[in-house]
Parts: sequence; structure tokens; C-alpha cells
Amino acid sequence: MTLTPARTMPGVLELLPLEQIAFQDMLDTIRRNFERFGFLPVETPVMEFADILLTKQGGETERQVYFVQSTGALEQGEKPDLALRFDLTVPLARYVAEHEHELGFPFRRYQMQRVYRGERAQRGRFREFYQCDIDVIGKDSLSVRYDAEMPAVIHSVFRDLGIGPFQIQLNNRKLMRGYFESLGVASEQQMLVLREVDKLDKRGADYVRETLTGPQFGLAHEAAARIMAFVEVRSTSFDDACAKLDALDGCGELFEQGRAELKDVLGLIRAFGVPESHFALNLSIARGLDYYTGTVYETHLLEHPQIGSICSGGRYDNLAGHYTKSHLPGVGISIGATRLFWQLREAGLLGPATSTVQVLVTQMDETQLPAYLELATQLRNGGIATEVVMEPGKLAKQFKYADRAGIRFVVVLGSDEIAKGTVAVKDMRKQDQFEVPRTELVKTLRVELEQAAAMARAGRG
Amino acid sequence: MTLTPARTMPGVLELLPLEQIAFQDMLDTIRRNFERFGFLPVETPVMEFADILLTKQGGETERQVYFVQSTGALEQGEKPDLALRFDLTVPLARYVAEHEHELGFPFRRYQMQRVYRGERAQRGRFREFYQCDIDVIGKDSLSVRYDAEMPAVIHSVFRDLGIGPFQIQLNNRKLMRGYFESLGVASEQQMLVLREVDKLDKRGADYVRETLTGPQFGLAHEAAARIMAFVEVRSTSFDDACAKLDALDGCGELFEQGRAELKDVLGLIRAFGVPESHFALNLSIARGLDYYTGTVYETHLLEHPQIGSICSGGRYDNLAGHYTKSHLPGVGISIGATRLFWQLREAGLLGPATSTVQVLVTQMDETQLPAYLELATQLRNGGIATEVVMEPGKLAKQFKYADRAGIRFVVVLGSDEIAKGTVAVKDMRKQDQFEVPRTELVKTLRVELEQAAAMARAGRG
Repeated sequence: MTLTPARTMPGVLELLPLEQIAFQDMLDTIRRNFERFGFLPVETPVMEFADILLTKQGGETERQVYFVQSTGALEQGEKPDLALRFDLTVPLARYVAEHEHELGFPFRRYQMQRVYRGERAQRGRFREFYQCDIDVIGKDSLSVRYDAEMPAVIHSVFRDLGIGPFQIQLNNRKLMRGYFESLGVASEQQMLVLREVDKLDKRGADYVRETLTGPQFGLAHEAAARIMAFVEVRSTSFDDACAKLDALDGCGELFEQGRAELKDVLGLIRAFGVPESHFALNLSIARGLDYYTGTVYETHLLEHPQIGSICSGGRYDNLAGHYTKSHLPGVGISIGATRLFWQLREAGLLGPATSTVQVLVTQMDETQLPAYLELATQLRNGGIATEVVMEPGKLAKQFKYADRAGIRFVVVLGSDEIAKGTVAVKDMRKQDQFEVPRTELVKTLRVELEQAAAMARAGRG
Repeated sequence: MTLTPARTMPGVLELLPLEQIAFQDMLDTIRRNFERFGFLPVETPVMEFADILLTKQGGETERQVYFVQSTGALEQGEKPDLALRFDLTVPLARYVAEHEHELGFPFRRYQMQRVYRGERAQRGRFREFYQCDIDVIGKDSLSVRYDAEMPAVIHSVFRDLGIGPFQIQLNNRKLMRGYFESLGVASEQQMLVLREVDKLDKRGADYVRETLTGPQFGLAHEAAARIMAFVEVRSTSFDDACAKLDALDGCGELFEQGRAELKDVLGLIRAFGVPESHFALNLSIARGLDYYTGTVYETHLLEHPQIGSICSGGRYDNLAGHYTKSHLPGVGISIGATRLFWQLREAGLLGPATSTVQVLVTQMDETQLPAYLELATQLRNGGIATEVVMEPGKLAKQFKYADRAGIRFVVVLGSDEIAKGTVAVKDMRKQDQFEVPRTELVKTLRVELEQAAAMARAGRG
């Protein structure tokens, strides 16, 4: 028979089991924190009707959509009416509009699913990737206080992920737009100026200054200089942030509203217990220009600036205007978990691989298999993930297997141990051996495993 | 602006948050058990190359495939080269063939992802649904002992799901085929006879008997009667199963091999600690006629026979013959979680909805918000999922919100309590109120929550 070469499409991250365990661990940590902050889970179908997905977007995103067709529709040459979601925001908007009368508001949901984009194949660019989103959606209105909750969640997630020091950076689109207005930047030009300002990190200050004073914008040198000074504002502490906001020389209602919101939000972030070292002003952040309307966030790993923002989001005015007349303001953040995991792996920041399997019960004597199975059942009922060697083989080979597979404890039950009612245990991590009464086995191993888990948490904290 | 009606495609099960929590709880229980038995996680991309997906299948399945095309490919009128997976077995075969040299064998993997089938829209038929699969894949060979591990996992999963009494039923394709051979059913007719036999539950004994003695098969009445008697065999205990196997009047090598395998497997299932009431012979089970070659399983809820098998699978000879020359025998089972959840909900077997949110911190006095946030942080750091009321409102309304949202504990922190260093707690489930020192709050609530979790587990056990 001719073989079909086994391969995956380009632009997907398929993991080997030990990597998958590490990735799953990351997702579990994110989920645990989302739940601790009182967010409720939602999952939506991977496919949406194309008219739902494509109402809002245009340009780049629309060109990247994957369309879906059943065999029948394809044969009849029909135009596809289904497409794969390219983010979790449009499905959220559709979900909230569809189930509006069955949901409680403010609606706090988390969603962790894969999304699809027909990106040009490129290293570190994915066509299928996990997004982990939280949003709070209000009906008619939503207090700016919720804007302070997002950094508290971000802090909790990345503290628990233990991938090094990080900082949540904030700006406010009202502050920014109000400032530009007070400099006389015409409102139809503000979007374009913001787009240039958004390039500051990538293209540098000189490029942005030249563009602003060039033919396209024709700003006076002083106005350009003030815009540049504005976007260069960073704070070093809570008091410094307040002082820098107070010192801004803008004016007008929108500007003052933005300033007041930012100050409220910064104060509440502190009240949420986020350390001052972990949040700061960064008035260069613009993000999703046509979408966010108030607070905007980015999160950066301080020791790995090249990775860029690992968690971003912001406040928006109306989630689902394409699907419902209800006014649904919201605030949310998103973690691109696949890309983050890939970047951490590339940067060598993932810890050593550990299996989910905690114990291997060896097979010393084939005739004793029922005793090994009984022991495994005892361990499993005690909550310990256990694999049993089912086929006979040399004990040395069984130990080697456990070592390669990242299994921590290897249990040996020979005729001596059976007679004595004990079990011999080898701790592969500590390279330590001990014997315990069989009745004590589960308790002993649980203590060791819980200590290791606590130490891992502390080491990452 | 014209509104686009918010809707999902037919044939998907989109859940409201409290239902999603119950469903997630089911998935978590399944995953926990898969991991306890030492299976390793794998996830594969939702899309595979169409030539990979469609090598093996034909007919029905191929007609149900969803093809995927990027916008660019669609515009150029290209034939789609990607399709959505319709099960987890083909992706597993591709995965094992692709990563063969990086995997340890026997390879024990679990996979819990959604699959896609362009089914005709029909109540209880889903176009997108979760499958939860485990498989053990051997290289060159795989001991029949692994066939006994599958029922042990099934038992553990459904014991923990607590959805009522269930029974795992077993057959062996070698036994069945060998028996038919010994009755002189020509080997090219066996598949067809098995297909008729597979209809026994749905169409009844009379229909099957008439077909077997009718023009298509032309079996003698005695041969038909013996086949009918064979497929009606059920056992009531381990000893009864052995006795019924011993009493079978077949002959030939294949038959004897099947009989020996079944007896080995039944004995080991008992050694795994599965109670005798939970597994039995059912010699009518054929399953996936062109795929399984040895042991086959089904699982039935005893009080809900109309639901059909809730977990099925079996032994196959060679997993990935289309992609590799390596011989990879395996054994596996699959739980269709979406369909199971839907059926349990229809049958009213899902427990009352409980939120993942465990505590609501109320807002009595707006100026005390920082104190509420601090309290919430204390609870969250203690591992308790906590929502804070962020906007002012009547306390009665806040209690009502907690009640509707399924949140168990409502915490009130008034000026009295702040002065005394205490917290007032209302337990919405027990309709009980108490006051605790703030330093004791986390400990007190954790004890209550752990007791409730233990009781829920015991109640389902």
C-alpha cells in the first residue's frame, strides 16, 4: 500500500506529551485564577455563520478567515456560509446578544479556546492558537472600577505562572485623545496620529517625530514635541504616576475624564493588593485603535522585552452593536497562550518536564500481576496517578522507562515486601530509596507530592 | 444600522454559564481519571490535511466531512486541502506515525477535544461534539492485558461521575468470528452476518432470525438458532461468565483464541478491583465492524437503557497502516461527552447548578470598597473563588443576585464588623448565618467547601 506522509499543516503548534503537560499546566493556572476572580466559563462553537463573523471586521482580518463547507455544500458549489472564529470577542458579542435575557449583568465570563487565522506561514506566527480571555459586560453602563480588576487578575495569573518579573502598563484612550484635541489635532486626524504613535516602540521616536511634522500631518514642531513627551511618560510608583498625571498640560472635558479615570483605576489596583512594582503608566499604549475607548493595558516580561506584550486589553463602549440594540459596554483582557508558551520555550524559560504520572508500579514477577494491579488501585483511589508495567521485562529497563518518562516514584513489590506487608519505593528525583508499610504508602507519597507542588509554587511566586 | 440576528449553526450545544460549569466538571472528572491511570495528554490541530483524514474512511464518514479553505484559496477556486477532524482516532494515527521516534511505547495517551461531522440536523445529533478518548498503542505487539485496563478506567470514570448504576459489557471479535466459522458461515458472509447481529438491540430477534434464514444468507434454521443463542449470552457474575464461555459449542483456533483472551481479560478486570456487578459478557456486541479485531466494549446505564452505550471501544490490529510501515496494535475507548451531557440533562440526571464562584463580597458602604477588595484578595489567595460587588446597590438586591447566580456564601463587612475584626457570613445553601474573626474566615469557608465537595463525591459514589 502507498503510504500517505504523516504531517500537520504549517502554523500549528503540536506538542509531545511532556510539553503538552507543561502547556496544560499553564492553561490550568490561568483558568484557576480566572475562576478565583469570579469569572464564569463559556465555550462557543468553533464555527460561526460567516455573516456574524464578518459584520464588524474588514481588511486584514477578513482576508485571514477560514471558511468551512460540508461535503454536500462543496459539491453543489455553494458559497460557504460558515467560518472559523478568528478571536473570542466576536463570539462573545454574538453569545451575549443571543442569550441576553438568560444572563446576569454585569456578565463576567472567561473563555479559553483556540482561534484560527490564515496568517502567512512564518516562525512564531500561528494559524491555530489558544486565546484565554476574560471580559466584564455591563448592561447600559459599567463602572470604571471594573477596569481596575483586570490588572488584579493579570497580576495573579502571571505571579502563579512564575515566568519572571513582569509589569502591567496602563493608558487611557480618553486621556490620549483629549490631549491631542487640546493640541488642536483635528479629530479626523487623531486616529492617524494615534496609529503613528502606536509605532513608537517598533519604529523609534525619530521616525514618529518626522512623520508628525511631515506633509501628512503638518504639526508644528512644538505640538509634535508635546505629543512625543506625552507618549514617553512612564511611572515608577503609584505616587509618581499620580504626580505625572497631575503634571500633564492637557485640557478639555475628555482629557480630564481620562485623567480622573486613570487615577481612580490606579488607586483601586493598589487596593486590590497588586504591588506597586507591578503596574505603571505607559502613555504610549494605544492598542486596537478602532475598538478601545478608555483604559488600555499591556503586560511585559521585564527580563524579556523582545517578547512584547503577553496580555493586553482594554475598555470598549459597546460590545454587540451589530447584533442587538442593547448598549453593552465592557472591559476585557486576552492572553495568547500558544504564542506565550512557544516564546517561553524558545527563551528556555520552561521548567524541566514532569509527567502527570506520579508512580510506576513495576513488574518483578509476572505471576504477581494481580497484586500489582491491586496496589495500583490503592494508589489511584488515593488520588495518585499510577501506571502499571503490564508486560514482563527486566527491572532495570523498567526503571529506565520511568526515568525517561519523567515519572517520579518507582514502586517495587517483591515477595519479601509482600511477606512483610511493605513496599519498596525509589524516588527518582531525590535519588532516594525507602521502604514503607503498605498501609502508609498513599499517605507517604501524598506528603512528598504535596511538598513538591508547594515548593514549585513558592519557587515561582 | 441593520442588525445581524445573533444565532449559532444548528447541531451545536452551546451552554449557559451554570450548565457550562456542570459540563466542565464532567470533563474534569474524566480527565482526572484518565490521568490517574497514567495516560498522557495529547492535543492535535482541529484541521488535518484532507488526504490524511480521508485515506481510511469512505462512504458515510467522507460525506460528512467539513472542508476548510482560507479566503485566498477560496477566491482562487482551489479544491480544499484541509478538513476538520471527524474523530480522534485518525489524528492519533497520524500523530503516532509522525512522532513515532519521539514517543515511548506502549504509548498511553488521552485526548479530549471536539470533533466535527456534517450530520443531518436532528434532535440529539451533534455536528460539533467532544470526544474523550484513551488508547494504548504498542509497537509490534501489545499484551491482551491492556484490554483489561480499559474497563478499569471506565469503571473509575463513571463511578466518579455519579450518574447511576452502570455495567461494562464485553465481547471478543475473534470468539464471535470463530464461532461463525465453526457454523460454516463463509468468511465473506461473516461481516454481513455480524452487521445483522449488530441490529439485534434495535430491530429485535425475529427480524434478525428471518434475515439470517432468508434468501440473502440462506442459513439453516439450526445454524441461525445457534447464532441467535450465542448473541443472547449475558453473564451475571465472574464465575457465570467463565461457565458460559466454557459451555460455548464453537471450535477452531480463532474461536479458542477469543475464548482464552476473554477469560484472561475478565480475570484481570476483577484483579483491577472492578466489582463483579459492573462488568459482564454480552456476546451480541460487535461494534465498528471493519476496525476492531479482539475485545470490544460497551457501557450501559442500567436505569436508562434507552440512552444506549455511553462508552465504547475495543482492540484493533494496526493503528496507522496508512502512514507508517510500523505495526502498531492498540486498544482504546471513547466517551462522547457532549451527547452524554445532553442525554443526562434530557433525563433530568444533572444535579442542581452550582457556580464556580464560592463567595460574594457585598458592598454595604461605597467608601469601604478598598476594604472589600482587600477581603476578596485574602479569600482568593486562600484559594476561594470570590466575586466582589463593585457598584453600590441595595444589600437585599445583592443577596438576590448571589442566590440566582448559585453562589453559596455571601459576606458582609459593615462598620461593626470592621471595628470588631470580624466578618458576617450567610450560607445560602444551609440558610445559616454566622460571624467569624477575619483571620479565621478562609479556614472556616475552606472546611465548609471541602465538606460539601466530599459529600457530593460520596453521594455520587
